[in-house]
Parts: sequence; structure tokens; C-alpha cells
Amino acid sequence: MDTRVAPGLRPLTELFSMSPEKKLKITALAGGVGASKLLLGLYQVMDPRLLTIIVNTGDDIVLHGLKISPDLDIVTYTLAGVVDSARGWGFRSETFHSLKRLAGYGRSNWFNLGDRDLATHIHRTALLAEGKTLSQAADSIRTALGVKSRILPMSDDPVPTIIDSNEGPLHFQEYLVKRRAEPVVQGIRFEGADSARPTPGVLEAIHDADRIIICPSNPLISIGPVLAVPYVRELLRARREKVFAVCPIVGGKSLKGPSDKMLAQLGHQPTALGVAKLYADFTGAFVIDPADKAQVTAISALGMKVAILPTVMKTLSQKRKLARALLQL
Amino acid sequence: MDTRVAPGLRPLTELFSMSPEKKLKITALAGGVGASKLLLGLYQVMDPRLLTIIVNTGDDIVLHGLKISPDLDIVTYTLAGVVDSARGWGFRSETFHSLKRLAGYGRSNWFNLGDRDLATHIHRTALLAEGKTLSQAADSIRTALGVKSRILPMSDDPVPTIIDSNEGPLHFQEYLVKRRAEPVVQGIRFEGADSARPTPGVLEAIHDADRIIICPSNPLISIGPVLAVPYVRELLRARREKVFAVCPIVGGKSLKGPSDKMLAQLGHQPTALGVAKLYADFTGAFVIDPADKAQVTAISALGMKVAILPTVMKTLSQKRKLARALLQL
Repeated sequence: MDTRVAPGLRPLTELFSMSPEKKLKITALAGGVGASKLLLGLYQVMDPRLLTIIVNTGDDIVLHGLKISPDLDIVTYTLAGVVDSARGWGFRSETFHSLKRLAGYGRSNWFNLGDRDLATHIHRTALLAEGKTLSQAADSIRTALGVKSRILPMSDDPVPTIIDSNEGPLHFQEYLVKRRAEPVVQGIRFEGADSARPTPGVLEAIHDADRIIICPSNPLISIGPVLAVPYVRELLRARREKVFAVCPIVGGKSLKGPSDKMLAQLGHQPTALGVAKLYADFTGAFVIDPADKAQVTAISALGMKVAILPTVMKTLSQKRKLARALLQL
Repeated sequence: MDTRVAPGLRPLTELFSMSPEKKLKITALAGGVGASKLLLGLYQVMDPRLLTIIVNTGDDIVLHGLKISPDLDIVTYTLAGVVDSARGWGFRSETFHSLKRLAGYGRSNWFNLGDRDLATHIHRTALLAEGKTLSQAADSIRTALGVKSRILPMSDDPVPTIIDSNEGPLHFQEYLVKRRAEPVVQGIRFEGADSARPTPGVLEAIHDADRIIICPSNPLISIGPVLAVPYVRELLRARREKVFAVCPIVGGKSLKGPSDKMLAQLGHQPTALGVAKLYADFTGAFVIDPADKAQVTAISALGMKVAILPTVMKTLSQKRKLARALLQL
């Protein structure tokens, strides 16, 4: 049998020998940088066309008249292989000439916008102005960048995350980026969530998936907004046995960002158990790091299976390893 | 007397000794690159605060959802000293990372948009979306860039220049940039000119000027649109003795751009005399290059004074020299 194939095509022998877990339809709920590590692993170890990613858009913001969707872009750039992997966001080898000039015109520059990245926001804003939906814009961007997985914003309707803080209400990006997560969080609101509609395909992707993965993102402001979109949490509950959540807290610290601090300020435990309590109603299997194995009993008591896997993903090999383990659970 | 002054301030002695022509209030009608050469000369040899520039906006176009005003920007960048002087437009040392990415998203890239330049368009578009006028946006941009002269768009209302050609109607930028002025021009329309209002300050600037200078720009599609704004041409006629026009055609060729070709295609003579005929009703003095002195008698017969001055401005010294001569006429 001739197994020579064009570059980029899998040899037939590999397809025939593909293990069953590689043929699973996977739907992932994701935020930005933290989620993208696991998603890149999944993208590489499975058929990426069988992967659907439902992305938080609570972080979306309009700046300088441009519609910016940070989590959608982080996921897309990461899977496209163009992301600045040191920062986890934006394009590699990016320049910031335009932002510097915008600041020269007296415009705010606390939100970093690179020159290449601006093209994404200009393109998306132009498509929306032409009457396209956010999900159509996201699809245009991911296909142009050659990403084979479906990337769905959780909703085409705006659902901005508002942080009620000791400094008053702040848009999430103002809280995180402009104010560097310094204000004390007193509450979190997903404005407009009640009347938001899930993007076409979101409910189907949850309904039809062989396995649903909750990425290791901030449970409050990355996964929280997705869960707040009508029918999403209810449908996850109905498919609870298929839901695998990867805990974003290891040893009482966030893998990325201010999750631990926010959990504590809102009266949750900043631990794996604390996150497990937030997810118990819709999660069948909770994945924790070996560092947290002492919490297995307490988490099991919430009615979830507990899997212990290394969840700290600094290298590509660690990302692929966790992804493969999740598919084989 | 202590004549030491802060850098950038004129010594008092220079102010006291300023010759009378430097205190003239000048209003200039301008297109883009051709006009900017003379304007830079004027800006440097007179008190720039006494200079008001009324700029063609017929070339304005919306691309990628951004409002682009090429002539306003060329004039502003030139006087701010940030222009790419080799090209005559855009910022010096400009990069084009964003445009390349926009093209990657399938967007058109026939109109060059640099990264720094994009900031101007983003800023202007954002101001317009906030309800500001085009002239307020132009003022924000020129003051941020430190330009001391007033720069007024001819109108805050859109007046797009449409070229009727053998390929059908084309927006002027499509004709000039996308189709490289190759289609045969059969007519020119300034869409919406009849109902456009002159920008606040335009009529006053013409009314109050000690001298009105028609810059050496394309008479059909740079000066033509300004003249088409209601009341402008009528007011210039009323002040005809104060109007000095610098001919943009030298030796039967455009100093810049397709003026000669367009004149010929529309049945005008592509000569100084041909331009003089278009301007005779509102121009008191017509400035031609020594190369065209054979046309003096014919131009004089149109009822205009004729001044012969070197109008080819390749060096800064030539720009200043023509400017100074115009002030002293």
C-alpha cells in the first residue's frame, strides 16, 4: 500500500489506526489565555474539525469605535499559530505604531492594540456595520487565519461583564487592564444576559458533543458569562455526565489572572474545591492537579467524579498531554 | 534689549521688523500634494496663524468603515512636518502591517493605509460617530499635530467626486488609485454639492482675507469641488481682485497627477491658458511659470493680470521663494 501523501494530509494508515477518542466530537467552553493552552493541545491531538469552541464575549469592548472581542481573538490567534506566545494575546512580532498615534490624538491607550490586531477589529467592526453578526465575523476571521475548528461567540448579543467594585461599576476590561484588578470586587453582572440569545450552533454543539470540556478559565468572568446565556447551563445540566471541567486553580492560586483574588473577594474559597462547588450542578468529572489531591474527598462529596491530571501547561508537550488525557478519560 | 527667547518663539526684534506682507491674512484653496508644496512655503515665510486653508473633500472615501480624507491629511501632515516627503502623503517611516492583515481578511488593499495613518482615520471616524463634525475632527487632528494654521474642510457634508468614465461611474479614488487614472473621463460630478453647506468659517475666511490663493492643484477635481460648494465661487467673484491663482500646468504638463490628461479628455486645453479660462471669472491675478510666458497675451485677454514666477517646487527653497513672491505681488 502506498502511504505517500501530499504534505499536510494525514497518511491513510494513520486515519485507519486513529484511536476512538480522536474521533470524539468535542465542545469546549472557553475564556482567553488560560483556555487557549488546553485548546491548542486539543487542536493538535484530535481532528480539529471535530472541535467546537464556545467563547466568552463578556470581555468585549468598543474602543475608538472598534468592536474588540479579546477572548475570541486570543483563541483564534492561538489556534492559528500566530499568537504572541510570551504574552498569550495579540500577534507575534507585533508593532504598536497606530496606538501610539491614537494616544497622540488624545485617545486612551490603556488597552493594547497592535497594528496587525487592529486589522482584526477594523474588519470585525466593518462586517458588523454591514449587518453581519458577531459569529459571522468570528467565522470570517478564523477561516482567513486557517483555523479548522469552529469558534462560536457565546452570543451575538452584547453581554458586557460589569464589575461592581469599591470604586463603583467598571467594565471588566477597565477593572482588569486599566485598573490592573486592584479594585475590590463586590459583585459581577452580565448585563443583558437574560435577553441574550445563544449564537446559532451553541446549543446544538452542547447537545451533540460526545464530550464537553470546561477549559481552565476564570470561573467567574470567563466561564460565568457563557453559563449566564439562557439555556446553556440548563443544557449542560441535562448532559452532566459528558461534562469535564478542568480546574483553573492549582494549590490555591490561579493558573492565570485574578481568579483566586476574585473568588476570595466574593466569598468563595479560592481553591479547587471552591471552583468545584460553582460547577457541581452541571459537571460530571472535575479535573484537578496532583497538587490538590487532598481535596478529592471533598470534591467527590459534591457528586462529581474527580480526575487527577497535571494541569499546569507551560510547554506544548504539557498541553498535548493534558488534552490527550482528557480525551482518554 | 534682551532678545533671548524660548526655542520656537520668534525674537521680538523679528516681529518688529516683520515686513508688511508677512502680516497679510491669507486664505488658500487647496487639494493635496500639489497644494501642499506651496502651503509649506507659505507656512514658513508668514505668520502661520494668519493662514487659513480650505481643503477639497471630494476625494473623501469610506474604506473598511473608516472615514478617510486624503487631502485634509496630506495638508495637515505636510505642515506638521511628519509627511513622507518622497511620496507626498502619509507619515514618514510608515509601516503597513495592518493593511497587509486587512488584505489577509479578504479586504481591498488598493488604497494605501499606513499604521500611523490608520490612527488618523480611526480617530476621525470615532469623532464623527460621537456627533462631531468633519471640521471639528480636522481641527482635533491638526492641533494634536501642532499645526498653527486653520485647516477647514470645504464642507462638513459629503460631496463625493464621481468620475463618469468609459467604464461607468467611478468614485474619484477608484478612478485615480484603483484604476490608475486609466479610464477615459467623460464627465465629473460633485454629488450633493448643491445642498452642501460651506463649513463654518469658510465664507468668512474668503470674505476677510487680504489675499486669496488658489493653490496649484488639479482645477477639475481638487479646486473644482471647493468651487462647487454653494456661495464659494460667488464670493470669490465678488473679491476677484484679491484672488491669486497659481497654475498647476507648466509647459502643457501637470505639475502633479492627471490634470493634463483630464483637461484634454473633457475638451479643455491642457495648458496654462486652458486653466486660466476655467478661473477667469473669479481670479484677479494668474501666476504662470516662465515656461509658459508665450501665453501671457492670451491669458491677459481673459481680463486677468498675469504674473510670471517659477512654479516648479522641488526644493524647500523653491517653495519658500514662490510663497514669498506671492505675498509680495
